[in-house]
Amino acid sequence: MIETLPFTRAALHAAYREGVTPADVVAETYRRIAAADDPAIFICLRDIAEVQAEAAALPGDPATHPLWGLPFVVKDNIDVGGMTTTAACPAYAYEAERDAFVVARLRVAGALLIGKTNLDQFATGLVGVRSPYGVPRNALDPEIVPGGSSSGSAVAVGLGLAAFSLGTDTAGSGRVPAALNGIVGLKPSLGALSATGVVPACRTLDTISVFAASVADAYAAYDIACAYDPADAFSREIVAGAPGPVPAGLRIGVPSRETRKFFGDEAQAAMFEAALARLAGQGAVIREIDFTPFYDVAEMLYEGAWVAERYAVVEALMEADPEALLPTTAGIIGAARRLSAADAFRGMYRLKDLARTAGAALGALDLLCVPSIPTFYTRADLEADPVTPNSNLGTYTNFVNLLDLCAIAVPTEPRADGRPGSVTLIAPSGQDALAASVAQLFEAAPALPLGPRPAPETFRIAVCGAHMRGLPLNHELTSRGARFLQTARTAPQYRLYALAGGPPARPGLLRIEKGAAIDLEIWALPETALGGFLAGVPAPLTIGTITLENGAEVHGFLVEAAGVQGAEDITHLGGWRRFLEGRAGVAAP
Amino acid sequence: MIETLPFTRAALHAAYREGVTPADVVAETYRRIAAADDPAIFICLRDIAEVQAEAAALPGDPATHPLWGLPFVVKDNIDVGGMTTTAACPAYAYEAERDAFVVARLRVAGALLIGKTNLDQFATGLVGVRSPYGVPRNALDPEIVPGGSSSGSAVAVGLGLAAFSLGTDTAGSGRVPAALNGIVGLKPSLGALSATGVVPACRTLDTISVFAASVADAYAAYDIACAYDPADAFSREIVAGAPGPVPAGLRIGVPSRETRKFFGDEAQAAMFEAALARLAGQGAVIREIDFTPFYDVAEMLYEGAWVAERYAVVEALMEADPEALLPTTAGIIGAARRLSAADAFRGMYRLKDLARTAGAALGALDLLCVPSIPTFYTRADLEADPVTPNSNLGTYTNFVNLLDLCAIAVPTEPRADGRPGSVTLIAPSGQDALAASVAQLFEAAPALPLGPRPAPETFRIAVCGAHMRGLPLNHELTSRGARFLQTARTAPQYRLYALAGGPPARPGLLRIEKGAAIDLEIWALPETALGGFLAGVPAPLTIGTITLENGAEVHGFLVEAAGVQGAEDITHLGGWRRFLEGRAGVAAP
Repeated sequence: MIETLPFTRAALHAAYREGVTPADVVAETYRRIAAADDPAIFICLRDIAEVQAEAAALPGDPATHPLWGLPFVVKDNIDVGGMTTTAACPAYAYEAERDAFVVARLRVAGALLIGKTNLDQFATGLVGVRSPYGVPRNALDPEIVPGGSSSGSAVAVGLGLAAFSLGTDTAGSGRVPAALNGIVGLKPSLGALSATGVVPACRTLDTISVFAASVADAYAAYDIACAYDPADAFSREIVAGAPGPVPAGLRIGVPSRETRKFFGDEAQAAMFEAALARLAGQGAVIREIDFTPFYDVAEMLYEGAWVAERYAVVEALMEADPEALLPTTAGIIGAARRLSAADAFRGMYRLKDLARTAGAALGALDLLCVPSIPTFYTRADLEADPVTPNSNLGTYTNFVNLLDLCAIAVPTEPRADGRPGSVTLIAPSGQDALAASVAQLFEAAPALPLGPRPAPETFRIAVCGAHMRGLPLNHELTSRGARFLQTARTAPQYRLYALAGGPPARPGLLRIEKGAAIDLEIWALPETALGGFLAGVPAPLTIGTITLENGAEVHGFLVEAAGVQGAEDITHLGGWRRFLEGRAGVAAP
Repeated sequence: MIETLPFTRAALHAAYREGVTPADVVAETYRRIAAADDPAIFICLRDIAEVQAEAAALPGDPATHPLWGLPFVVKDNIDVGGMTTTAACPAYAYEAERDAFVVARLRVAGALLIGKTNLDQFATGLVGVRSPYGVPRNALDPEIVPGGSSSGSAVAVGLGLAAFSLGTDTAGSGRVPAALNGIVGLKPSLGALSATGVVPACRTLDTISVFAASVADAYAAYDIACAYDPADAFSREIVAGAPGPVPAGLRIGVPSRETRKFFGDEAQAAMFEAALARLAGQGAVIREIDFTPFYDVAEMLYEGAWVAERYAVVEALMEADPEALLPTTAGIIGAARRLSAADAFRGMYRLKDLARTAGAALGALDLLCVPSIPTFYTRADLEADPVTPNSNLGTYTNFVNLLDLCAIAVPTEPRADGRPGSVTLIAPSGQDALAASVAQLFEAAPALPLGPRPAPETFRIAVCGAHMRGLPLNHELTSRGARFLQTARTAPQYRLYALAGGPPARPGLLRIEKGAAIDLEIWALPETALGGFLAGVPAPLTIGTITLENGAEVHGFLVEAAGVQGAEDITHLGGWRRFLEGRAGVAAP
């Protein structure tokens, strides 16, 4: 069944060998995009007919073209010929004449471009909420920010809408969203991937990055994309190599316990400890180091003058049209107006000094391993303070490009509360294959999630009544570590009843042949907590399979037909909240 | 005779083996400094007693200490413990607590520090005329600028006052003055010599440089000085190596004839052609390349924002005390006030692009060979226009540090007019030994001048009358390609007579036991022109040996004692010009 086919390179190529066609995969891609029902993921989706024509004309096969028939999406600060590049700023938008150097290489290798994805405007941010095109829903937990700046590209892979995607990474935009969406984020060595056809953020620090469900898939795309580009002055002769067995006795530096930063998030601290234990168990030598020099470097991204690189990109636009940028973005980038050339050089001197200290630590190590993010932030957190959570998210990413290192963020076992775990392996420039090799150690365990799907250790459950957010029985979920994932609606084949009894008042959802679409909430419940939860579900309620509006299925609360005897049919209201509102209205006078 | 001992490492160490003592050499050093009679060479000369004490306490010997007993001087933007560092700006001056990293290494190897030398203020300039401490006289030709910014250090070696000296080089300050004073200027790979204890010019582009009479002597000092310094963030692990035989078939890139720049100086063009012929004769493969990309890079030093690095050094001083800097220097550095951080980054991007093009040319070559300077400029030229000649002098030097290359300027056979020839060999970072090896090819010919002395191909001749500048017979010198070197005075053992006859009126200089000091001019006459010149010297004039006020000797015009019969004794006037002035005064009414 193509509907359940993971969009991994191995699965897709196996399917192609078994008779599935690129046309099938393109159709399924667009079906999934429709089902995801999130207009904020893409800034521009290609017309399916255009992609189908391309798919039909694909030369070669998976044996000759490494990325043959793999759907991919591209952050909208990277050019695709014939499409608009916006950088999430309509006033900046331009029609790209040709594909970016990297995009062209991927397409020649058989990859199928589906669309251009949303981002924090001008790739300025690590949160994914700074775009006039909306905020993509996090693939795992809609309360959490999607992460940025490569928000749409990360969410698309997280939802299984693409086999891989391109982001860009200056401060961590190719790693932070990977961590937040439970996928792999490969941040290559600077200069490995050409910047020709990319809207710069900080040209001296930028790189295209790759998101995928697995290290192998990310590396396959990276391997194709990696080539020297004489037209890009920042391009370097870097050999991609290939991940392989991990050498014995690798010395892996990690932040000492005293210098780790989790902003009070104990579950994240535990996640990191568990990840280190896994590395040690695989024979690595873990060396705790004072991480202060790396934090000092990270701060240079804000305290130094690198923001002036961003300003150099948009100076003409900002000065001509002060309203062109989002206020937050304009505020951050506009700060460069106060920075002199002497400030720029002073920043470089300070970085040189700090890099010397950090380099001394790195000299005795083969790699670093850090938490990809220190903690999680919700959309509400960002609405309350658009800057501090953004800064905190860069704790373990901001220093990497300033020190000319390569990195790869990889999912680890989920945290105790079900949130995705992620660590980042960091290596010297050119050692991308070594970092990827170590990252693969985290994929070896059978229990590990492979990319886009919610972790197997959680159970997705649809609720339609008192268990929903803010309602009387919600605590039965939250006290068990469940996380809200998203709102949803059933297929139009249900009736909703207000059952007798209570308090609290409870609804019953009953499937019929022709009914209505009923509002749901979908939650992720730790599997270990499922038994206790079910034990508390009283008759006539059951946990069954619910068909959603988009055709997908999820387990959730239903009611026995017998249980609706004497109950009030409230199907016409479309959902339990409307019923409660109505009751409140009635009760009020 | 120590008075004639060349201050080369080989000659000094040979002398030490034969019984000469460091005390003798120190005494001779100070005698030569006194004889040079130029207060603008040194900003601070150490007390001789202090140096003698140090010389008396020198541990080891030339066999154990490579620089044992070699007098050296240091540009006054480099710290010497216990001395003032001025950077040629009294308002900036500070007492240095300890020796710069490089100075300390040289002294440990046995070198004897004599003093701190003059420079273009804050090392900003290539001319040597921008200092409140005066303009050092060029060692070969006082009409010509000494070159800068390392003026005093180059002149000191040019005059044989030191075995080697330290300069600094950002745009060419370690090469241009070498070319102008007929000596070797070694500009190491960036980061090879620590900048600890050096007043920065442009920290990202600066290096200490070495002047000496020969490549071997410059390299001996460089070899000692070259060491990684953990305290300097710009220090690199570079291996000095050693000059040796030149590999066969070296590919040496040179500016194509179409892209060479000599500003109309045909003699310089011919000098360069002759130098290339010598390289080709030694088996090198000369490849003419379009030099436009290198000129484009050179222009970045002015058009880019690097001047802001200089401003970062003196910002506090300039803003607190607008009069602290020389007007020219303040004007150049103060331009950085108008440069934003975005400008700085834009300059770096442009440099990256240009470096890519230049790098493509370099990739197919082992070295570059360029004229060290395109032409010569006089002090008068600089008085008329303080900027353009300065810019032109950097034609073949400005791009080198921006492209992270190493270089060495080496004297070639003098030009047809007797002026010093000089070419610069340029190599990739870390290839200092290769560049020096090729430079040594120019020293192999027996006819080549070795450092400080005027080229053997010219004959120094003292004139005391109508041959002096502006007087009726001066054309007999200038038409033969002679160059004015300096004014001088005889020892007080001469009488001066106004001979009978004329026009033109002529003097006669006659040695007696007790007489007076008489004004002279010393000129350098090409040896090939000497015969024709002498043929035109009529009786009673002769060419003999004249003792100068400082004890040195020079050939020049004397008069036969017999020739002064009936002549007017004008000894009391002290010189021929005073006599002419007196006559004019008498004639006027």
